[in-house]
Amino acid sequence: MTGEQGRVVVIGAGFAGLAVAKGLLGSGAHVTVIDKRNFHLFQPLLYQVATGGLSPANIATPVRSLFRGDPRFHVRMGEVTAIDLQARHVLLAGEETPIPFDTLIVATGMHTQYFGNDGWAELAPGLKTIEDALDIRTRVLSAFERAETETDPAKRARDLTFAVVGGGPTGVELAGAIAEIAHYTLKGEYRSYDPENTRVFLLEGSKTILPMYDEMLRDRARTDLAKLGVTVRENTLVTNITADGVTVKVDGQEEVIEAGTVVWATGVAASPLARMLGEAAGVTVDRSGRVEVTPVLTLPGYDNVYVLGDMAHTKDEAGNPLPALASVALQQGKYVARVLRAQMTDKPAPEPFRYIDRGTMATIGRAAAIADLRGLRLTGFIGWLSWLFVHLILLIEFRNRLMVLITWAWGFFTRNRFARLITDEG
Amino acid sequence: MTGEQGRVVVIGAGFAGLAVAKGLLGSGAHVTVIDKRNFHLFQPLLYQVATGGLSPANIATPVRSLFRGDPRFHVRMGEVTAIDLQARHVLLAGEETPIPFDTLIVATGMHTQYFGNDGWAELAPGLKTIEDALDIRTRVLSAFERAETETDPAKRARDLTFAVVGGGPTGVELAGAIAEIAHYTLKGEYRSYDPENTRVFLLEGSKTILPMYDEMLRDRARTDLAKLGVTVRENTLVTNITADGVTVKVDGQEEVIEAGTVVWATGVAASPLARMLGEAAGVTVDRSGRVEVTPVLTLPGYDNVYVLGDMAHTKDEAGNPLPALASVALQQGKYVARVLRAQMTDKPAPEPFRYIDRGTMATIGRAAAIADLRGLRLTGFIGWLSWLFVHLILLIEFRNRLMVLITWAWGFFTRNRFARLITDEG
Repeated sequence: MTGEQGRVVVIGAGFAGLAVAKGLLGSGAHVTVIDKRNFHLFQPLLYQVATGGLSPANIATPVRSLFRGDPRFHVRMGEVTAIDLQARHVLLAGEETPIPFDTLIVATGMHTQYFGNDGWAELAPGLKTIEDALDIRTRVLSAFERAETETDPAKRARDLTFAVVGGGPTGVELAGAIAEIAHYTLKGEYRSYDPENTRVFLLEGSKTILPMYDEMLRDRARTDLAKLGVTVRENTLVTNITADGVTVKVDGQEEVIEAGTVVWATGVAASPLARMLGEAAGVTVDRSGRVEVTPVLTLPGYDNVYVLGDMAHTKDEAGNPLPALASVALQQGKYVARVLRAQMTDKPAPEPFRYIDRGTMATIGRAAAIADLRGLRLTGFIGWLSWLFVHLILLIEFRNRLMVLITWAWGFFTRNRFARLITDEG
Repeated sequence: MTGEQGRVVVIGAGFAGLAVAKGLLGSGAHVTVIDKRNFHLFQPLLYQVATGGLSPANIATPVRSLFRGDPRFHVRMGEVTAIDLQARHVLLAGEETPIPFDTLIVATGMHTQYFGNDGWAELAPGLKTIEDALDIRTRVLSAFERAETETDPAKRARDLTFAVVGGGPTGVELAGAIAEIAHYTLKGEYRSYDPENTRVFLLEGSKTILPMYDEMLRDRARTDLAKLGVTVRENTLVTNITADGVTVKVDGQEEVIEAGTVVWATGVAASPLARMLGEAAGVTVDRSGRVEVTPVLTLPGYDNVYVLGDMAHTKDEAGNPLPALASVALQQGKYVARVLRAQMTDKPAPEPFRYIDRGTMATIGRAAAIADLRGLRLTGFIGWLSWLFVHLILLIEFRNRLMVLITWAWGFFTRNRFARLITDEG
């Protein structure tokens, strides 16, 4: 190896950051992986934790366990407070000695934002972290408990009304799962009311849910959601959120939907590090706070600094920005690992990054999904089977313990532990 | 059925309360099960959650799911604030309408107590709730992370020192599991230190750990603990706890053990309802706040009020108080269900309650345990296998999802969800 790429610092242990780090295992590079948390989170299944289908540990993998084999790999749990592109080092909160780098990878993703209405955060939690998911789980389940003791029919109806704001894949998956809980999981468990009377609204401000899919698949999604008991309302912009529900604007008319539980499945912005980098490098950030990067995914003007995943603004060949998807992040991470390995062995650099769209999929409740696999459109049970297959494969790739959990009894005989998560309260 | 036992109110969905309620399924009785939480907790495995071996959902079962089949069963999530033995009703916090009963079962267990040193609660969490377990998990795992960035050798040594206060089964299991994490699970995961240097103290104020076992088994436990790297200190009374460690008194001499993490596995007292009942009925409570009950487990003077499990002071034939064990609670619950069923069908009442000691067991880290099965003493791997067997059987009895988790992939096809817990933050 040449010394130049020798010290690689990766900020963020999401799909992109981990893919870079794993791609450098055994390469001879000294790699430091920094994350605020001690685990990688398999975000595509976070809605399952929010709706009680999975435990946090099922979709989280301790980062250290991934790199124990290579003594050149360091894992640091901490928050980056400063990046010095000239001096080439980063600083962690509460520390005085900076961590030097030759090559820097920044991939800290996105966080929830409320478009200036920060008061909504408490009323309508987003879904980005394990804590968010557990918060939503508690709210959803508590609503059914409240309804059991409520004697006022109007208040009970409000307790049994759920509003999911945002008709992207997360919103669709959440709304579907909540409807499924009400109509199937809780059947027969309450005495003062029938959970069948639960209402779930999916509110989308633009003219359609799931805009990245074609109309045929969207229509199928609408049908599947309706079957589950979800009321899909498009062209329905949320203008206010209170403890009693949401105010929406439809065709210029305001309307109040009384709802005891509101979930925010829209509005994400790049992590603050994106802005920090943009300012340091004099590079523009887009409306979502994402950094515009070069075709080889570097920060303009800094060949040794890569910005990847949800916080990078990258374009496909047609000039359209790439979506904030795990598969984009994963491919970018693998690409950068290849670039660095080529540099280390003085091989020619790979071509600029090109995203290979293998398809997108979203589940709609139990045993139904839509998938667009490069023109091959799958729906219903077949769509769901393909969704399950792809996610199980991905989970295994990230050495997640889901499959290992299946063999808990055997796992008990090994020395490993599956739930090693440091979370604030969860 | 006669009307007299018709309305049964069960306070507490622990082992005792659930056993009563399950024993009355289909009997024609109207049963209301009240608990502060929406789940039954399989407490014997709580130390596994505290040490990252299991997720909360693995050892918790939603109470409602147990009784969905019988429309005469109500489940109420709430806290009992008043019991009126004369008017025969109980009141839940925040409610105005009391819940009437003909027969009352009180079985709300124990909670952690610090013998007047309430300030210790923050420094040394106990292990009674899911939140406790997650708190301990975070503390234990964070200590290893702190040690990785600590540069002062003395402070690092403190970060890597764990003190478990109390040498009963919980203390032994916790200390063993923490030592195992340090010496096996985390092997190779840190760069600034070797987790092998971790020290785990098990501090017992009396002259022996595991007093309920005979000396041969205790000795084996001491050997097994030592092998795992646990320093067992008996006759070592904790006199103070600070953020830096614990002060102990040995042979009248005070000594400070610097420890970054302290866990409180001693000191439990009956839930406040015990005192409330005792005062209402003019009945004495013992030193631990437990109610002394009649041979048929009723509150003296109240034939229709039963006090069961950890909060009841019951004696065996020799006049010795029964230990606070899940198996005692379980047998008491089943006994009371039999009594009530006999009353309902005008059959003769069963004999007074008699505890059948089928044995006690405690695990010591991975694949080692001691078991005393009515004179049959098992140790080591065989002891552990018997422990595993008994606990898997018990988990299945309580319809826990552990085994179902093993078949997660299949479970995904059913309509059930495994992680339906309402917790504060976890």
